[in-house]
Amino acid sequence: MRIAVLGGDGFVGWPTVLHLSQLGHEIHIVDNLSRRWIDTELGVQSLTPMDSIQERCRIWKQLTGAKLHFHLLDIAQDYERLKGWLAAHRPDAIIHFAEQRAAPYSMISDRHKVYTVNNNVAATHNLLAAMVEAGLDAHLVHLGTMGVYGYSTIGAPIPEGYLDVEVTLPGGDRKGMEILYPTRPGSVYHMTKSLDQILFQFYAQNDGLRITDLHQGIVWGTHTDQTRRHEQLINRFDYDGDYGTVLNRFLIQAAIDYPLTVHGSGGQTRAFIHLQDSVRCIELALSDPPAAGDRVKIFNQMTETHRIRDLAAMVARLTGARVVNLPNPRKEADENALVVDNAQFLALGLEPTTLADGLLTEVVDVARRYAHRVDRKRVPCVSAWTRDIARRVVDDPEGSALRSVS
Amino acid sequence: MRIAVLGGDGFVGWPTVLHLSQLGHEIHIVDNLSRRWIDTELGVQSLTPMDSIQERCRIWKQLTGAKLHFHLLDIAQDYERLKGWLAAHRPDAIIHFAEQRAAPYSMISDRHKVYTVNNNVAATHNLLAAMVEAGLDAHLVHLGTMGVYGYSTIGAPIPEGYLDVEVTLPGGDRKGMEILYPTRPGSVYHMTKSLDQILFQFYAQNDGLRITDLHQGIVWGTHTDQTRRHEQLINRFDYDGDYGTVLNRFLIQAAIDYPLTVHGSGGQTRAFIHLQDSVRCIELALSDPPAAGDRVKIFNQMTETHRIRDLAAMVARLTGARVVNLPNPRKEADENALVVDNAQFLALGLEPTTLADGLLTEVVDVARRYAHRVDRKRVPCVSAWTRDIARRVVDDPEGSALRSVS
Repeated sequence: MRIAVLGGDGFVGWPTVLHLSQLGHEIHIVDNLSRRWIDTELGVQSLTPMDSIQERCRIWKQLTGAKLHFHLLDIAQDYERLKGWLAAHRPDAIIHFAEQRAAPYSMISDRHKVYTVNNNVAATHNLLAAMVEAGLDAHLVHLGTMGVYGYSTIGAPIPEGYLDVEVTLPGGDRKGMEILYPTRPGSVYHMTKSLDQILFQFYAQNDGLRITDLHQGIVWGTHTDQTRRHEQLINRFDYDGDYGTVLNRFLIQAAIDYPLTVHGSGGQTRAFIHLQDSVRCIELALSDPPAAGDRVKIFNQMTETHRIRDLAAMVARLTGARVVNLPNPRKEADENALVVDNAQFLALGLEPTTLADGLLTEVVDVARRYAHRVDRKRVPCVSAWTRDIARRVVDDPEGSALRSVS
Repeated sequence: MRIAVLGGDGFVGWPTVLHLSQLGHEIHIVDNLSRRWIDTELGVQSLTPMDSIQERCRIWKQLTGAKLHFHLLDIAQDYERLKGWLAAHRPDAIIHFAEQRAAPYSMISDRHKVYTVNNNVAATHNLLAAMVEAGLDAHLVHLGTMGVYGYSTIGAPIPEGYLDVEVTLPGGDRKGMEILYPTRPGSVYHMTKSLDQILFQFYAQNDGLRITDLHQGIVWGTHTDQTRRHEQLINRFDYDGDYGTVLNRFLIQAAIDYPLTVHGSGGQTRAFIHLQDSVRCIELALSDPPAAGDRVKIFNQMTETHRIRDLAAMVARLTGARVVNLPNPRKEADENALVVDNAQFLALGLEPTTLADGLLTEVVDVARRYAHRVDRKRVPCVSAWTRDIARRVVDDPEGSALRSVS
């Protein structure tokens, strides 16, 4: 297949590109490199020394003979070029990672909220409108998030996107209906993925677009079979409070002898997936597209759930690190249960890589190898979800403070 | 109160401004005048000879002594000026009409889809982010639409925004939950109002903003008590296929001896409200704000429902006009029932003005008076909802055709 990977230079995008190229597909990376610009804005860098996208593509060609096509294009800002690109290249499938993807970044300031909403909505909607206009019958696979379910838990396993409910009619009869799971996102970033769901529902219904939406858990790990093949294919690995994901951050904190920072009681339960499984799920989703006229196909792309404090305790046991509890900069429940249905990917053949499989040690090894590149001041989570939370200045274990709100 | 009316130069915005000014409030109109620009783009004009906003304000001052403050400001494009404006003027309440509001316009072309989504999402989200950033505890009243409910009918009266459902838990117990009514909007325009709902839910929950969302039916009529007071206060009155609303269009068609154009079987049932009731509902909503921390308060702002073919038959009886059935350019069910709960406004004291109240004749009189200003070529609805519908070229009764899709 000819596959466009929008956001193919990112944390999951890049390993996806390599995985699909290895499988023999013709890969076109479309990226505005905004994530690299944000590194510059924040003054942080990937723990791993990441090469330019052009150099990465050169190395892959040299190793495998497969050419990766890179196109510098901002799909949120430049609708007309996107439409022209789709019309000219006519991909069979499109993987859409091209959104700002960090909840803490989306909450830094009003400017970051506005950027995240405008960028993510325009990226997704431009893509949908351009596919219709170009008459393109490509399978669109979008990376969503488990976070759209947010606060909206029901005391039952979270189903894959749709929920069966009953309504009581006047007169007392009950009527069953299947609805999109009611979302209650907890950050501006997560909210944009809820907005995406509405966009997808409309374009599948009105124009027959074939869309798969992957509600992904928190990705951990840093290597896949392909990124291990050459030092210059190494993946991005974020450790900062904005872009680092919780388990990876614990492992890095352990590697640099920094306390494991648990926010609040650590009673939040989250869904996780290893990077290798993430790219495998995308392969599986591509193999099983919906038909034109079908509703949006939604998968829960995760393999296990854990409480944050249990993860911290596990990493502490593995590495000898110390755990500290800090005030929570997010507005969320202190404790939540989370049970998730992921039967669809299991049925398609996913064999989960779990925390028990020994890959935690690999991540610690990567973190130790590059520990000299860490700026310890960037480790704390400093985005406060509200002005009230920001006012309670929260000390991190090494004496920094929450970003102040003007 | 000091009230900001965003979009205060528009079809419902302008009568709202006058109604609230008459009640003694200090009114600030914030508008980018985009609706006037769209008139220019489409080459149509209001049936009624509408004055500039500056002239309108001058006349009102001369008549009543009350000053209307007009601020030319694009809240979607200029976040920083909006924030500065809110911080400087600190309104007690904000009425938000400032969105592109026509379904057919939103479906003209991909450019119009992209404009409608980017404009409407940015307008609403900029406003919410700026209110938080300015620390403004104003009551935000937003004009939404009955159209967010869209295809999602349940065989019971449509409740006011929230739906009680039951979920069956593993083990067989049922659990009740109250959810935002599951939306299935039928056009890009209506979709943007579904997106707004998610934005409001988040900002009410995260930041305690006090928000009322009015799910309005189709507005008919052209005068209110205030616009009748002077010829130069006359309201906008759209007759074209993009911006004209169905009942007003029938009345204009009758006045110019044009057939009443019913799309499909005319079995679509819609909710209606007279312009006078619309401005009264906004007054009532202002009088009953939610508290900080409350969920978004949602009203169904409508007074009656009718099938389109029944309306056409009624106007035909009243005026002697002929009815023609044309193919439907929209993608929608041919026939739908619609029962709507509007108990909240009735409880607050709304006394509905219904079609039976004789105001239909007033609208026909206005239409006849200005019939010489009609361009008959602009009467048909020519925006097709999909490429397939556009390919079936649909003749209108006078020989024009659907806009072709390139």
